[in-house]
Parts: sequence; C-alpha cells; structure tokens
Amino acid sequence: MTTSDVAQDAKKAPAKDPWELPDVSGLVVGVLGGTGDQGRGLAYRLAKAGQQVIIGSRAAERAQAAAGELGLGIEGAGNAECARRSDIVIVAVPWDGHAKTLEGLREELAGKIVVDCVNPLGFDKKGAYALKPEEGSAAEQAAALLPDSRVTAAFHHLSAVLLQDPEIEAIDTDVMVLGEARADTDVVQALAGRIPGMRGVFAGRLRNAHQVESLVANLISVNRRYKAHAGLRVTDV
Amino acid sequence: MTTSDVAQDAKKAPAKDPWELPDVSGLVVGVLGGTGDQGRGLAYRLAKAGQQVIIGSRAAERAQAAAGELGLGIEGAGNAECARRSDIVIVAVPWDGHAKTLEGLREELAGKIVVDCVNPLGFDKKGAYALKPEEGSAAEQAAALLPDSRVTAAFHHLSAVLLQDPEIEAIDTDVMVLGEARADTDVVQALAGRIPGMRGVFAGRLRNAHQVESLVANLISVNRRYKAHAGLRVTDV
Repeated sequence: MTTSDVAQDAKKAPAKDPWELPDVSGLVVGVLGGTGDQGRGLAYRLAKAGQQVIIGSRAAERAQAAAGELGLGIEGAGNAECARRSDIVIVAVPWDGHAKTLEGLREELAGKIVVDCVNPLGFDKKGAYALKPEEGSAAEQAAALLPDSRVTAAFHHLSAVLLQDPEIEAIDTDVMVLGEARADTDVVQALAGRIPGMRGVFAGRLRNAHQVESLVANLISVNRRYKAHAGLRVTDV
Repeated sequence: MTTSDVAQDAKKAPAKDPWELPDVSGLVVGVLGGTGDQGRGLAYRLAKAGQQVIIGSRAAERAQAAAGELGLGIEGAGNAECARRSDIVIVAVPWDGHAKTLEGLREELAGKIVVDCVNPLGFDKKGAYALKPEEGSAAEQAAALLPDSRVTAAFHHLSAVLLQDPEIEAIDTDVMVLGEARADTDVVQALAGRIPGMRGVFAGRLRNAHQVESLVANLISVNRRYKAHAGLRVTDV
C-alpha cells in the first residue's frame, strides 16, 4: 500500500451494513395491474403486513371490486390515480401492456420509486421461454420510458398461488432487488422484508435484470416436475 | 373429461418420482478445464465424494500437476484423453476457449453426457454483466457443436472458493440442471447429489440455460454487497 492509498482509504466512509434498511411502514404502496394474480397477491400480502395499499387498473371499478374482495383497507383506483397517490409503485401488469401502461403514467410516476416485477415470457408446447425486450429487460424498458422515476426491479419469483392463499402465513423465499441507486433498492428490500418469510436481497444493477426476470421460465419447469410452487433462497447471506 | 380423455389417461404411465435418481457412483467423471478454479473445485468435491475423476487440460503435464496437488486418486490428462476415458464430462473451461475446445473433441465426446457449467460474462468498472452467445447460451453452443453428445447444463452457481476450501464439509446450495432428455438430467442431478449439501434440481430445457448461466453476474453483486459466497436454494421442492 502506498502513502496515497492510505490517504484515500482514510477518506472513505466505513462500509454501510447492508441489512440496515429504512423504515418503510408509512409508505403508500400502489400496485399497477393489481387485479391480476401477481398484483392481487402482492397487494394482499403487503396490506396484511400493515402497509397502506392502492390497487390500480385501467378501469377504476375493476380495481375497486378487487380491493373490496381483498379487504384489509386496500383501495382501488384507476392507474393514474393509483400512481399519483402512492409513494412507491409496483408494476405488475402483463408484459403485453407494459410499455403502453408506463408511457401513459410518466408524469404521475415522476420522482417515485417504481418496482418492476414483470417477466417477459413466451409459451409454446414445450413450456415457457424467455423473451428478450429490445431494451434488454422489462426493467430497462421501464427505466427508458420513465426517465424521471427511480426504477428498480423485484418480486419476480413469487408464486401467485401462495401469495393469495390465506392459509399460508409465511412466504418462504428471498426477493432479488435490482437497481441503480442504493437508497432506492434499500427501500424495496425493506418493503419485501415486511412480508413474513420474505427477505429482500440486493442482486445487482438493472443491466442484469433480464436473467432475473426470465428465470421464471425455469421455475415453471421446476413447478411442473416437482408439483411445487418454487421460490429461491440466496445462501450464505 | 370426455371418454377419449379417459382412454388416453388410462394409457399414461404413472408419473415417475422426480427424486428417484440413478446410482452414478461407478461413473468416471472428466473435468475439462480442470486446472481452473471452478474445475479444480468440482474435481476435488466429486473425488472426495468417492467418484473417480480425471482432470483435463490442453497440456497433460499441467493437468497431472493439478491432479497431484488435489490427491484423492484424481488423474490428469490432455483434454482428448480425459474426454475419451470419462463416462460423463464436465466442461469448466473459460468462455473464451469454449467453442474451440469443444470443436476439437467432437469424436471423443460422442455418445457421452456433457455437462456445461460455463458462464459467459463480461466485466467492466460496474461489475459483471451477461454476454449473449449467438446460439443463445454456452450450453446451446455446446449442443450445436456436439450433435452426437448428450448435452446438459449444471453447476453454474457454485463458489470456487467454497469448493476448494478443505475446511468446508458441505456445500449449501442447489444445482439447477438443464437438458433435453430426462435420462441425462437424472444422471447429472444424481452426480450433484453425491456432494454433501448439494442437491440437483431439474430446471428446464437448454433453451432456458442463458438466464441460469448469466445469473452468476447477479451472484457476483450479492457477494460484493454482503461479502459472501452466495449460492441458491430452490424452495418448496
């Protein structure tokens, strides 16, 4: 180590504890596509954990109907109102409508943390396979369409069946969280950690989102072979 | 259900138990690229589990030297001899030399189970990122170059540090195994299961290998953030 190395080292802040995450219990969580299975499941789990949740849908009445069924103080609204009233917005729309939905919400989502959990997949007789969005991944497409938002990616590997089953108390899985800014991924990790059994684990930048999104094709194969609702745990962390 | 459905159902064999795997203890395992960290680590663990192992390298002397250091009855040989003498061949060469190495071993690998564990990654200042091989993945490149072999993919997410550490008894991770033929993936799963702590889990066809290979970029981010040697467990199976 040279003298200049020592000088530089002395200036560095001590590494932050990666498990020191912010308190997110007061944040309002919007779920775009909250009437779909994944969206409903996430809304249900987050509300059950004490989070204030607003389900968004293209049609406000459908969102309100889904919210009414779920209970737990969940509200329903049109996508634009959902985005406007929420502090953090989960994107759980079908891949088909992903670009169009986000394009229309650029203003409402400005400055907010957006959590993309969309898995671009195709299906044929042999099962599921990964689609490759032009931007690289659904999350990178979101980042391109929402230059004023803080785009992250998470919640890809959850079983909608388990999420929606009221008999199941804990969801036994880690949630890989991707993003460019630590302040944002820390918030999303903390949000995942609100759900019993779940843990948010930082897993890289958005340029590495494609493989996380498309790994769902592999989990579908696992589920078929083992008649399971597979999730993932990261070991040694 | 219609009558014809019933008739078809009656003809179906009962689903095979996915954990009923063959005895592979008598198979000779070759490790191409066995002088690299990943290859050495796998050779060490498999030999420790009682498997007969041959390390392959471009230079037979280097393979023999590495084998001598590892002990446990491991042998070293040139790549061609290693391939010829082994029943099942793990490909652990650097991505750079992947195509060239396999092209030269087409005859020696004919009829054999080939286990590709190569992760095509690039590195820059921001860390690791996925490369996309023309064929879709390293495993699909292997399948294209070795039309007479039974190509599978597995052992991507292992820490070479943990594999090589003699103080560590069990490797706490699942091994995702991909391939086209169940007879082949069953063998590879059984081989993974020989190593204490490890479990081989079927995780789809080769067309879904890219995301499994490139997920290593994410695990590198995990390792950096948490100062860990991360692996993966599939839950609910």
